[in-house]
Order: sequence, then structure tokens, then C-alpha cells
Amino acid sequence: MRDSESMIEGKNAVIEAFRAGTTIDRLFVLENDKSGPVNTIIREAKKSGVPVKFVKKQRLDQLSETGAHQGVIAYISHVEYADIDDILDKAASKNEPPFIFLLDGIEDPHNLGAIIRTADASGAHGVVITKNRSADVTSTVVKASAGAVNHVAIAKVTNLTDTIEGLKDKGMWFVCADADGDVMYNLNLTGAIGLVIGNEGHGVSRLVREHCDMTASIPMKGQISSLNASVAAGVLSYEIVRQRSLNE
Amino acid sequence: MRDSESMIEGKNAVIEAFRAGTTIDRLFVLENDKSGPVNTIIREAKKSGVPVKFVKKQRLDQLSETGAHQGVIAYISHVEYADIDDILDKAASKNEPPFIFLLDGIEDPHNLGAIIRTADASGAHGVVITKNRSADVTSTVVKASAGAVNHVAIAKVTNLTDTIEGLKDKGMWFVCADADGDVMYNLNLTGAIGLVIGNEGHGVSRLVREHCDMTASIPMKGQISSLNASVAAGVLSYEIVRQRSLNE
Repeated sequence: MRDSESMIEGKNAVIEAFRAGTTIDRLFVLENDKSGPVNTIIREAKKSGVPVKFVKKQRLDQLSETGAHQGVIAYISHVEYADIDDILDKAASKNEPPFIFLLDGIEDPHNLGAIIRTADASGAHGVVITKNRSADVTSTVVKASAGAVNHVAIAKVTNLTDTIEGLKDKGMWFVCADADGDVMYNLNLTGAIGLVIGNEGHGVSRLVREHCDMTASIPMKGQISSLNASVAAGVLSYEIVRQRSLNE
Repeated sequence: MRDSESMIEGKNAVIEAFRAGTTIDRLFVLENDKSGPVNTIIREAKKSGVPVKFVKKQRLDQLSETGAHQGVIAYISHVEYADIDDILDKAASKNEPPFIFLLDGIEDPHNLGAIIRTADASGAHGVVITKNRSADVTSTVVKASAGAVNHVAIAKVTNLTDTIEGLKDKGMWFVCADADGDVMYNLNLTGAIGLVIGNEGHGVSRLVREHCDMTASIPMKGQISSLNASVAAGVLSYEIVRQRSLNE
């Protein structure tokens, strides 16, 4: 995936972008402009947690690409998603059995970023996220990933179970994280494997779990019943790394 | 550690608490009070990200312990820290070799919370944090820990190397996380062990690293040179869990 930026200039264009749910990274607004549309923009920015910088006209003129900023410039980030075949091609080109993270509704952008970072670090060939009920790859995610979004292929799918079934036909095995599963050290996690990580609150959804071949649990030795989602992804993916390294 | 709450009531007392840098969890303010001190309090709350709830006088009267709330009640949380001996006692009472997390300047409260949660889950007997250059156990940390702060002994020390040397005299070994270390799978991480996790940006400080017996690295298979600090803590602590389970 590549992370590139573009601008939206002009009051109405920026208001429309907010209304369309576009992910705006940051906003430059002419200082001391108290007009109605600008107030609307600032209110929308506050609602969405978009940082606003109040600057002089000269600064906006420098930034502007159209010369028609009307006192407002918004930066939006575009992410280019991969598709599943890109991920499989990446594994094939490295002559490695595919290793894919599948995220079943990770909602927190810091977790999503940390998981993408972990996917890169553990040598996974890609990350699959869902179109609904999932954090999008926003600037917070890009930052939390320490730039890993630029190195990891990220595919966005509508239906995770369809994706899992499609990949099973290509010889992949799927393991999901669940407190009731077999202790991860006792499972064979080598070969072509998909690691399914569930939502922060509810874990892996029932339907997705039923499509997995194995259910792995992380031993919980204290009072708390689960780990943070990105920590769990790290612990499980490194158990896969360990088992793969023994096979090399 | 126990996490208990107390109240501050009255406009000046709350303003003073903000000025003193007290960690305020949440704030109840009389609705429609537009006085100067109340505006100051709301401004300070916004700056510090403290949630403010505007309520009727009746509600404040109910909450008040002094009867003199003047339209403002703040809740602050107190944490009771353990000392090192409490942590060692906990290990002894479970008849286990001590397993302690030592955090060398974790700054992000979400990371600190996730690490304390991981310490509980991996069966560590306590977490040592430093008085300076470290996030404090605020309400954000309590929340990110999923309540684990109430189960894990947390000690706060002035000098981490002194603590390490003191624990070495009691037979503990120390391993720190560092990219240049030995691959963790090749180290013997059983026995009485302290796991040192470094700062998000700079890692473990040179002095602390020099006092450790072993330096462990997590294999990095991609483009990114490190994991998120709480993920790294999870991966390393579960390698300790794995090795300990083999010895049982």
C-alpha cells in the first residue's frame, strides 16, 4: 500500500468532504475568519477530531494548488489497497508459504496501526481488513504503524468468510485467537497460514470462527481474561515465526 | 495496586488542582454557570482532555460530601504503589521464581496500560516503573490496562539500575529487549527473571542495558526495525511463559 496525500480547497468543497465522510487528516483555516461556513467547518473538524491550524493568508496562498482556497485547505490521505492475489504473489515471489493476518473488526486505529507494524515485522505477506465494522487506514493508523502501511499489502474485503473459503481452496489453513482454544504452543502453525484476530470487545465473530481450522489460545496466568488486541496479534504471530524458524 | 477515587469540591480547589497538575478523571459542573472561574475550569479540562458533565444543582448536591461544591466537583484517582519486596513476596507466596517487568521510560499511557495488562496475563509478579521520564498511572492507563492495575503490584523507583543491582543480589537475572541482542529463542529465559522494556523512541537506555545479563532481540523479518513497545513486551514475556512451561 502507498500512502499519498491530496488537498481539497475552498469552503464548500471541504464542507462537502466532511458530509461525505471523507477522512481528512488536517485542516488549514484563515485566522480570524468568523463566517458561517468556516464555523461549520471548525465544528465538523472538532467532531471528527481533525487538527485545525489557523494561519495567515500568505501561508494558505503558498499551500494552495488551485489559487482558490477561500481561506480553507484540507489534506486528505489516499491509501491504495492491494487485493488478495497481490498478497499471494508476494509470498510466491519470496518462495514462502503464505502468511496472512485477517482482522475481524479491529476498531481502534492505534491497534490497527500496531498490528500492521507487527505484520511487517513478523514477515507476513499481507493484512486483510473488512469494509465494515473496522477502522479505516487513516493518518492515525499510518502513524501508529511506524510507516509499515507503506510496506505491507493491505486488502479490504466485504466478506471475511468468503475470503477465508477462497484461500482454503488455495491450500491455506486458518487459525483464530480465542480464549477457549487449544494452547498455541500445542498447535502446528507452520505452512500456509492465515491468522485471524478479532474485535477488541467481542473477539472473533461466531461465523468467522466456524470457518477457521484451528482455535488458538494464549495462556492467561492472571486475573485478566484477555490481552490487548495488538499484543495478542504480536504474541500469536511470533509463535508462528518461532515454529516456522524451527522448520527452516 | 489499588485504584481508588476521591473528590475535590469547590471552584478554587478544582482550579488549584489543575494548576498543581493533579490527574483529574472527570468533572461535574453546574449547567448554565457562565462565571469566570467556571470558564477557567472548563478551559483547563479541555486542555487536559478531562470529560466534563453539565448537571443540575440537585445532582451535585447528591454527589457532594462537603455540601460546599459551589457548582463544581472533580474526581481524582489515587494509586497505591507497591514496593519491590511486595513483588518478591508475591512470587514467594506462589512458590514461583520471581518474574518482573521493568519499564525504562514508557511514555505512552496506552502502552503502559497494555503492558500492565500483559504483565498480569503472563503471570508476572509485578511491574517496576521509574519516577521520572515515564507515564504515570492515570485514568487512561487504568482503562487501557482493562483493570489489570488492580491485580498487578506496581512499584515506582527513582533509579532503575540500583533496583536491578539490588535484585541481582537476590539471585535474579535481567534481560533487556534490543535489536542487536541474541535472538530470544536462543536464550535461556527461565528462572528468576526481570524483563526490561525500553522507551518507545530510544529503547533501553545505555546504562540500564549495561546492567542487564542478557540482551534479547525479536526477529524482524520486514522493513520496520522495531515493534510497538507493548507488542514487544507481549512477545518477549510470552517467550518467557513458553520456556517456563517447558520446565514445569
